[in-house]
Amino acid sequence: MLKPSPEFEKLMEFLRERQFNAAITPIEQLRAGFERFAAAIADPPPVRTRAVDAGGVPAEWATAEQGIPDAAVLYLHGGGFGIGSIASYRDLSARIATEAEVSVLTLGYRLAPEHPFPAALDDAMAAYRWLRDSMPASRIAVAGDSAGGGLAVSLVVALRDAGEPLPAGVVTFSPLTDLTHSGSSIKTQAALDPLVGPESSRSYAHRYLAGHDPEDPLASPLFGDLWGLPPVHIQAGTAEVLLDDALRLARRLRDAGVSVDLDVWPEMVHILPFFAARVPEARAALRNGARFLRDRLDATAEVDAPTAPV
Amino acid sequence: MLKPSPEFEKLMEFLRERQFNAAITPIEQLRAGFERFAAAIADPPPVRTRAVDAGGVPAEWATAEQGIPDAAVLYLHGGGFGIGSIASYRDLSARIATEAEVSVLTLGYRLAPEHPFPAALDDAMAAYRWLRDSMPASRIAVAGDSAGGGLAVSLVVALRDAGEPLPAGVVTFSPLTDLTHSGSSIKTQAALDPLVGPESSRSYAHRYLAGHDPEDPLASPLFGDLWGLPPVHIQAGTAEVLLDDALRLARRLRDAGVSVDLDVWPEMVHILPFFAARVPEARAALRNGARFLRDRLDATAEVDAPTAPV
Repeated sequence: MLKPSPEFEKLMEFLRERQFNAAITPIEQLRAGFERFAAAIADPPPVRTRAVDAGGVPAEWATAEQGIPDAAVLYLHGGGFGIGSIASYRDLSARIATEAEVSVLTLGYRLAPEHPFPAALDDAMAAYRWLRDSMPASRIAVAGDSAGGGLAVSLVVALRDAGEPLPAGVVTFSPLTDLTHSGSSIKTQAALDPLVGPESSRSYAHRYLAGHDPEDPLASPLFGDLWGLPPVHIQAGTAEVLLDDALRLARRLRDAGVSVDLDVWPEMVHILPFFAARVPEARAALRNGARFLRDRLDATAEVDAPTAPV
Repeated sequence: MLKPSPEFEKLMEFLRERQFNAAITPIEQLRAGFERFAAAIADPPPVRTRAVDAGGVPAEWATAEQGIPDAAVLYLHGGGFGIGSIASYRDLSARIATEAEVSVLTLGYRLAPEHPFPAALDDAMAAYRWLRDSMPASRIAVAGDSAGGGLAVSLVVALRDAGEPLPAGVVTFSPLTDLTHSGSSIKTQAALDPLVGPESSRSYAHRYLAGHDPEDPLASPLFGDLWGLPPVHIQAGTAEVLLDDALRLARRLRDAGVSVDLDVWPEMVHILPFFAARVPEARAALRNGARFLRDRLDATAEVDAPTAPV
């Protein structure tokens, strides 16, 4: 009853056999390995894709047949700010576009160590402003996983501080929110998650920060002032080292008066929705995130609708 | 940063020194010990209290100065269906009444082993119907912790099956939802929670079931058909053996299309809000639950308001 699916168990077996330590593997090898892995598990639903220059940052639109008009999700991929790409996230983006019935703009932001903090944030900001040229902020949602999930929150904090209009909502899958790695799950769940262990996570943070303060709220949104943010959907699995990054973010957002939709998956691992092509739990998790995106963009559609004359 | 408070650590130390196994302790001793413990930590805010006969079941109203008129929370206390009482839950009930600004009816339902399944459920049903004599279902919310949290869900499932009007919302703190104890956290978190371990939890379930099928959805709501339920707020701590009872309930409710507000507390233990008089995290957790109750009862106030003539 409610045990992990055979497909999930098979994925775990596959990952356990291929576990490696990102702290002692060259970045080129990590990138190539992730691209191969992503390509091997991908099976994207049919969507229209189109490469664009999003304010100077390479990006790609994914649009499903039935899309909410004039609305977009800015997607910030995971990979510890050092790996991952538009290509390796094409399956996930296509699924979000299909499930949420909205166009998804996947961003190919600059990666560390070549481009350390705040390059990724600068690129996310540039792409958001580029989207704002063609639609109001209330028709934009921001989403991301792992490093990209933390980046999504940092982006909205930076926008708020700059006095710019905020997006309608934020979705984070297994967000990395604390580059000091002070959460207790870093230790307690270390043996459970074959995808990302403590050493790998720390090494990615090290490359991204390049000596920058890990408690800077624009790098570690957990330490930021979170008032005034739009509703945030947060997912995590209980078998991942970043569980506490997600739960502490939820707590800090609630303390700041922000509406939080928390979705925690027993026995599941890091960035569960990434495995939607292979694992039924991942498809269900992705649907929850997509439903939140659609609800937020539907809600703001009403706000933006022209007022009928009295 | 965001580490457990000194007050929480002190409580943990206190509990660790007094850990006992409910499987080998006589029920009278368990009850008396719990009453003493509850009295020692209590410091209730000022409320008016009044003993009532709620459809044949002893109960007590707690009403704060500023209460939402004509609305009530039916509170089902924890204690594994075998211990706990109106007296030992007076602190928590007074706090909910104060924070949610609503009258709370704490139920002294019959306990096992003297009164096994379905005595507790029958009493909860009788009290709910008694409340319904003086107010519409939409002005009632149901709340409970641990065994009482599972009982709250079972009550609403039973009401739905009986075709009766459902309450406006349900709040469960660390709900016990699976009397087969099949959740993975029963094992993985066993060393972390000094309040309730696997053996104690199993022994309480054994006394309550008295041979009844543990997969009966009215005893283990996790196995029930959960469609059509009102919005449910679910709290749990990551350091409790019943974590997966809460997370799996959230998942099954979402799969059934029910609105879920999940609130998971990193490093916190079983029935966190019970410790509100002593622990700041517990007060914050209780406020989240109380806010949900008030929002739900406020929401239905609008539905019930008399329609103005056009």
